Amino acid sequence: MARVLTVGVCQMGPVERGEGRAVVVERLLAMLRQAHAKGARLVVFPELALTTFFPRWHMEDGEELDSYFEKEMPSNETQPLFDVARELGVGFYLGYAEQFVDEAGKRRRFNTAVLVDDAGAIVGKYRKVHLPGHYNYEPERPWQHLEKGYFEVGDLGFPVFPAMGGTLGMCICNDRRWPETWRVMGLKDVELVMLGYNTPTGNAVAVESPHLRMFHNHMSIQAGAYQNGTWAAAAARCGIEGGVDMMAGSCIVAPTGEIVALASTNEDEVIVADCDLDRGRYIKETIFNFAEHRRTEHYGIIVEQTGATSA
Amino acid sequence: MARVLTVGVCQMGPVERGEGRAVVVERLLAMLRQAHAKGARLVVFPELALTTFFPRWHMEDGEELDSYFEKEMPSNETQPLFDVARELGVGFYLGYAEQFVDEAGKRRRFNTAVLVDDAGAIVGKYRKVHLPGHYNYEPERPWQHLEKGYFEVGDLGFPVFPAMGGTLGMCICNDRRWPETWRVMGLKDVELVMLGYNTPTGNAVAVESPHLRMFHNHMSIQAGAYQNGTWAAAAARCGIEGGVDMMAGSCIVAPTGEIVALASTNEDEVIVADCDLDRGRYIKETIFNFAEHRRTEHYGIIVEQTGATSA
Repeated sequence: MARVLTVGVCQMGPVERGEGRAVVVERLLAMLRQAHAKGARLVVFPELALTTFFPRWHMEDGEELDSYFEKEMPSNETQPLFDVARELGVGFYLGYAEQFVDEAGKRRRFNTAVLVDDAGAIVGKYRKVHLPGHYNYEPERPWQHLEKGYFEVGDLGFPVFPAMGGTLGMCICNDRRWPETWRVMGLKDVELVMLGYNTPTGNAVAVESPHLRMFHNHMSIQAGAYQNGTWAAAAARCGIEGGVDMMAGSCIVAPTGEIVALASTNEDEVIVADCDLDRGRYIKETIFNFAEHRRTEHYGIIVEQTGATSA
Repeated sequence: MARVLTVGVCQMGPVERGEGRAVVVERLLAMLRQAHAKGARLVVFPELALTTFFPRWHMEDGEELDSYFEKEMPSNETQPLFDVARELGVGFYLGYAEQFVDEAGKRRRFNTAVLVDDAGAIVGKYRKVHLPGHYNYEPERPWQHLEKGYFEVGDLGFPVFPAMGGTLGMCICNDRRWPETWRVMGLKDVELVMLGYNTPTGNAVAVESPHLRMFHNHMSIQAGAYQNGTWAAAAARCGIEGGVDMMAGSCIVAPTGEIVALASTNEDEVIVADCDLDRGRYIKETIFNFAEHRRTEHYGIIVEQTGATSA
C-alpha cells in the first residue's frame, strides 16, 4: 500500500518593508486553500514568510528590527493559519523570525521554521544552522545580507518528526546547499525535507549568471534528495522585493533527484505533487544503503575540522 | 596569473574477458598522445583500465581472478605508459586492480588508482573506499557486481597531492556518489578530483531508466564539484562489454558544477578542457567558505553512525 502524501509548495511574490502581517497571512491562507483544493494535505511556505526578507537592510537593534520578530507562535495574527489548517486538515511548514527570552533572561533570536500538523498543532521546530551573509554593515555591497548579525546559529540540530504518516525534516534556505544538512537527516531515515528560501537572483559579491544561480539552487536540492533517497519540497520568495530581484523556481523533488513539480511564475503560486513516501526505499536499500556502504572511519575530518586547510 | 592545467579525459570502449594488457596499453597510449596533441598536460584513464571489468563475473579465488591483478606498478606491460608520460610531459591517473603481500605475509587486494606526474613518477595513490555490489555469487542478478568480494575497503582515506601545479585528489566510480568523498578532499582544499568509472547503463536490482542513471552519474559529480569549489574529471568504460551495456558520459566539470566537456560517443574518445585551478577560489571564499559557515557541532552523526535509524 503506497503511502502517498500530497504536498503543496506555496511560492510567494514580494512582501515590502513595513507591510503588515495581516495582508501576508491573507495571502498564505489563499494559497493554503488553493493547495487544499488540489488535494494537498501538507503545504510548504517560504523562509521568514510573514514579513519582507529584512536581513537585506542594516538596522540598529531597535524598534524596526524588533518588529520583524514573532514573540509567540501562534500569535493573534498567525492564529488563522492554525485554525484553517485544522479546519481543512492540511498541515504546513512556516518560516519566521523567532524571538524569546530564555531562562537566564537573555533575548534569543533565530531564523526558524515550524511544522504544524493537520490538527493545527506544532509538532516540530527547526532553527537555521547555516546562516549565510555577514555580521556587520558592509557598505560595498549592493544590498546587505545580515543573517549572521541578526540571528544566532540554530541550536536544535536537524531533527526529524513522525508526522502526516511519514518521517519529516526541515531546513532553511542556505542549509540546502550543504550536503551535511541532508546527510544528518538521511541518517534518521527522513522521507520528506521541507524548506523555504530567500535567494537573490544575482550574486552580491561575485559574477554569476541568474541561470547558474538557479542551477545551483536546484542541483543542491536534487543531489540532497537523491543521495538520501528523500522527497524535498522547496518554497521561494520571489519577484522584486525591496529593490532586489529574488529567485523563484520553487520545486518538489523526488527521491530520484528529479524535479516533479516546478513553479512557472515569479509571484504567488501553488504547485502540488503526490509524494509516495516509499518511493525512496529502493535507493535506501541499494545504492545508498548506508549500513552496507558508508565508511565512517574515513570521514572523521568532516566533523573534526571546520575550515579547509591546504595540502 | 591564472593557473591553467589542461586536462584530458580518456574514455574507453570495451575490453573483453581475457584480452591481454598489451593491446589495452596501446589504446591508452594512443589516447595519451591524442590528448597531448590537444594540449593536455594531465589525462584521466578509467577504473580498472588495464582489463575488462572483471567483478561482473563470479570466479573462484584461482588463476583467472589472479590474472586481473597487477603485482607491480609499473610492470613490463605498463612501463610504456610511464615512459611516454615522461617523454611527452603528460601526467596521468590510472585505475587498476592492485595486489601485494604485506609485511605479515598476507595477500592484499584493492581497487586502486595512481597519479603519475609529468616526469613519469608515481606521486599519489588512492584505494577505493566505497565498494559497491556484494560479497558472494547472487544467481538472481543478470550480472554480478562482486567488488565487495574481490577487494578490501581502501585504507588510505582520501588524500590529496601537490602535483602538476595544483592540489589533486582521486576517487573511483561509486565514491563519486557520496558527498563525504568530496567533502573530505574539499576540506583539504582540493582543486581537481580525478575519477574513473565502470557503471552499467541498466540497474541490475531496480527499475531505472538509462537516462535517470546518467543524470545520477553527472549530478553526483557536479554537486561534489560545486559544493567544494573543485574541478572534476571523470573517465568512463563504455559500450557493450562482457554482454553488459556500460554507461559513457565521460566529462570534465568546472567548480561551478557546469559540465564543460562531455564525451559524445560510446567508444574510445578523448575530451580536453583548460582548467583554471583558481576558478573555484571565489566559491571557496564566499558561499562555501567552510571556516565561516560550517557548523560541525551539528554534524556528529555523520561520523558516529554508519547506517540509518528510524525516527
